[in-house]
Amino acid sequence: MNKYLFTALFLTPLVPMTDGWGATKKQPSAEEQKRPNIILFMVDDMGWQDTSLPFWTQKTPYNEAYETPNMERLAKQGMMFTQAYACNISSATRCSLITGANNARHRVTNWTLERDKQTDRQSATVELPDWNYNGVSQVEGTNNTYVGTSFVELLRQSGYHTIHCGKAHWGSIDTPGENPTHWGFEVNIAGHAAGGLATYLSEQNYGHTRDGKAYSLMSIPGLENYWGTGIFATEALTREAIKALDKAKKYNQPFYLYMAHYAIHVPIDKDMRFFPKYVRKGLSDKEAAYASLIEGMDKSLGDLMDWLEKNGEADNTIVIFMSDNGGLAAEPEWRDGEVHTQNAPLRSGKGSLYEGGIREPMIVSWPGVVNPDTRCDKYLMIEDFYPTLLEMAGVKDYKTVAPLDGVSFMPLLKGTGDPSKGRALVWNFPNIWGNDGPGINLDCAIRKDEWKLVYYYETGKKELFNIPEDIGEKHDVAAEHPDIVRRLSKELGQYLRKVDAQRPKFKSTGKPCPWPDEV
Amino acid sequence: MNKYLFTALFLTPLVPMTDGWGATKKQPSAEEQKRPNIILFMVDDMGWQDTSLPFWTQKTPYNEAYETPNMERLAKQGMMFTQAYACNISSATRCSLITGANNARHRVTNWTLERDKQTDRQSATVELPDWNYNGVSQVEGTNNTYVGTSFVELLRQSGYHTIHCGKAHWGSIDTPGENPTHWGFEVNIAGHAAGGLATYLSEQNYGHTRDGKAYSLMSIPGLENYWGTGIFATEALTREAIKALDKAKKYNQPFYLYMAHYAIHVPIDKDMRFFPKYVRKGLSDKEAAYASLIEGMDKSLGDLMDWLEKNGEADNTIVIFMSDNGGLAAEPEWRDGEVHTQNAPLRSGKGSLYEGGIREPMIVSWPGVVNPDTRCDKYLMIEDFYPTLLEMAGVKDYKTVAPLDGVSFMPLLKGTGDPSKGRALVWNFPNIWGNDGPGINLDCAIRKDEWKLVYYYETGKKELFNIPEDIGEKHDVAAEHPDIVRRLSKELGQYLRKVDAQRPKFKSTGKPCPWPDEV
Repeated sequence: MNKYLFTALFLTPLVPMTDGWGATKKQPSAEEQKRPNIILFMVDDMGWQDTSLPFWTQKTPYNEAYETPNMERLAKQGMMFTQAYACNISSATRCSLITGANNARHRVTNWTLERDKQTDRQSATVELPDWNYNGVSQVEGTNNTYVGTSFVELLRQSGYHTIHCGKAHWGSIDTPGENPTHWGFEVNIAGHAAGGLATYLSEQNYGHTRDGKAYSLMSIPGLENYWGTGIFATEALTREAIKALDKAKKYNQPFYLYMAHYAIHVPIDKDMRFFPKYVRKGLSDKEAAYASLIEGMDKSLGDLMDWLEKNGEADNTIVIFMSDNGGLAAEPEWRDGEVHTQNAPLRSGKGSLYEGGIREPMIVSWPGVVNPDTRCDKYLMIEDFYPTLLEMAGVKDYKTVAPLDGVSFMPLLKGTGDPSKGRALVWNFPNIWGNDGPGINLDCAIRKDEWKLVYYYETGKKELFNIPEDIGEKHDVAAEHPDIVRRLSKELGQYLRKVDAQRPKFKSTGKPCPWPDEV
Repeated sequence: MNKYLFTALFLTPLVPMTDGWGATKKQPSAEEQKRPNIILFMVDDMGWQDTSLPFWTQKTPYNEAYETPNMERLAKQGMMFTQAYACNISSATRCSLITGANNARHRVTNWTLERDKQTDRQSATVELPDWNYNGVSQVEGTNNTYVGTSFVELLRQSGYHTIHCGKAHWGSIDTPGENPTHWGFEVNIAGHAAGGLATYLSEQNYGHTRDGKAYSLMSIPGLENYWGTGIFATEALTREAIKALDKAKKYNQPFYLYMAHYAIHVPIDKDMRFFPKYVRKGLSDKEAAYASLIEGMDKSLGDLMDWLEKNGEADNTIVIFMSDNGGLAAEPEWRDGEVHTQNAPLRSGKGSLYEGGIREPMIVSWPGVVNPDTRCDKYLMIEDFYPTLLEMAGVKDYKTVAPLDGVSFMPLLKGTGDPSKGRALVWNFPNIWGNDGPGINLDCAIRKDEWKLVYYYETGKKELFNIPEDIGEKHDVAAEHPDIVRRLSKELGQYLRKVDAQRPKFKSTGKPCPWPDEV
């Protein structure tokens, strides 16, 4: 496949036409012709330990239990990131990814599904902010929606063929952002408003009755050809993605594939291709089912890597592996073991601002650019994908309708610099999730260098952790370092106010909870 | 539905970012808020007489035979155009529509379907040019393809929600342009590479076997929900379009619906909702079937108009009715009566550069702007839709990667001017279609004011007609007006060379056939 650098083919200046046309169509140079394909392989609700590939300094029992040979294979080709962060909740992460904005700015801080329906559990003591529960959009006109420019739109306008496969979760039902094609995807396989799925099982038509009616808002659309075939949803999505790649290959354009698996989100159905093996290994039914979801996802990664190799595209394709929040650890009906421990050594899980809720398994393979079999311990954040992917694609001069908070991590990939040095990362969660637990609900946090401060809006409590020394956030050292607490509180408060972030109010007084630097 | 003038929301200048963002989000004024919805209702292969609405000065037997009450209703609301032109072949028209280029320039002069397959019938005496049989695209990288900017892309970038329903026919199979989403459509219902259809019948799953396999390259995709329901394809498309409009209404964006019916293209299946009535009226089976296709299409128009009225959108929606070439008149297996007469008083039909092949039934309704129940006898051309629709939508400052040949016909709609005065329209067909007949194959033509010159590449023959005086092109007056022939030949030749048009070569000498002004 030839990869032309399409010279701003339809990303053209907004100036009056002079002679009826204007964009130049110069011949691309040899250098320019190598625009890479990009696959962003995004897993849902996958924790830092849900793999046989150790992201920590040592192998954990979970690393021993699960089998992800293709993640190991990808890591051998590229760079593992041990401090890659996302938000604590899927919607927040997905919206930061597509708009390049921090979640404090875009205000889609909790999960979205139905239009105009706030999904928070309500509180007797605090009133929650009127956050953007309708998600994000590229157009104005919908209330409680953040408007931003999609980097996929920019990729497409620069000449990429753009494919969405799996979970979208950008706009609530009946809002413009619900459809991946709104975001610049030319192909949409099975993506819609929902951030979860009714079932992985073809025997249940992925959530449809026999006569084809969706029985859940989370029924997976678009996989009708696989109904009743015995094919697990993860596999069906992979096969459809490969069909789309076969087509992309014919188009002679570079492609961007967003392989956004519904896996490994609940319901933790048994992927019977792998489940029996884990039972034989001694895992409980619940844990074996979870392991089967993981390995099914990993097989998909391998299938895509195989496709690249068979089709001569491996050398010119960037593969990025990422998850959207920590592993689910707050619901005993889905997992065995003590709740909030399944991401250990990280503390807590999905929904929490502790590391277990936000630190993700991330790998980047880019033959010829990223050194194989390497690790990077510098931190980065989900909104950093926006400028990085555009830089990877050679899209340089673009404008967006809203500010970008992301910072390109290209220097980390190339080993030419460290954009994380002295940089503050921020999370805001002035919401109440469905579950309780450590670091979950009504909080915000800042990470800067080795320090992380977590602030709780309702109680005013502040916690300080030295992350490299205390990855499990077991030792709150706030009392020992009042100066650091003060400095980070100030920086966090200033940032939140700068981006017009939201906070809860006390019902008793009607007054807003203090910003972290007001306590 | 509020219609905001989205201030260049993602149609933004290609300049380096200064402060990370740039586009302004000013509040729209009351005036700006009225961006109209636009429905382009495009019929396939519909001739000038395939309606009960007389576009000529008098009612013909065909006008008496067919029943199109909703075209009559639309005409009462708006303006009929009696000299609206398209190309002589569908692909040429569709490609001019989407790129704004004349067919001599875009070189998709014959019909497209399979990649790298020329569809012309070959000749013993002339070698046909290597025309763009792969269609059009927005990206470079495919041979025999014209690259242009889609006006739908520009509408979408300016904030329109864009819906494709029905026939697309822009790029051959396995080329980037085959998918309507490539052109800026966010919704694609049943559109793909093919310009025809296997069957209208749900009993045949619109061209699929019982186990879901397409048995033709022209099987209609995407209508699985209607298989076996007894619902004619025209009706199924209409129902899906209305679902998309229901959704669009919720998005609070202005919408553009391209309702591009497969009707009334062959096969002339019987639409049993209407067929018996026409048999009772005394029409033959063939003619009754044809009439049923027409009335089924007309019902669809009515259903969309009803939707607009029921949903309070009628006052703010432009409806444009158009066809893509003349009625099929060259194939006795599909029509009764003498061949080439079914568009009378116009001569010949689809494939021909005589009026029967290129003059279309066109109506524009735009409440508050276009005077109701009016007629316009000025001429216009299919590529004129491009600048006109963008002007209707208030998209003013845009650039395209290739020149636009279209001229806005807004002055005709508003009664403020006559862009057709002194303007030359050009057609080029250096091809051989599947059928022979008057004005069909290896010709080009120019219309300027009352005169029309047709030139035949192989024979060098020139014909001159005074169209207002001789709508049937029965009297070639070339011999009587050598000065006019010379003048028009020169203008036609100069235009064709200017846009780098193609022409056949003589096999005997290997030399190109002369341009019209070289004879």
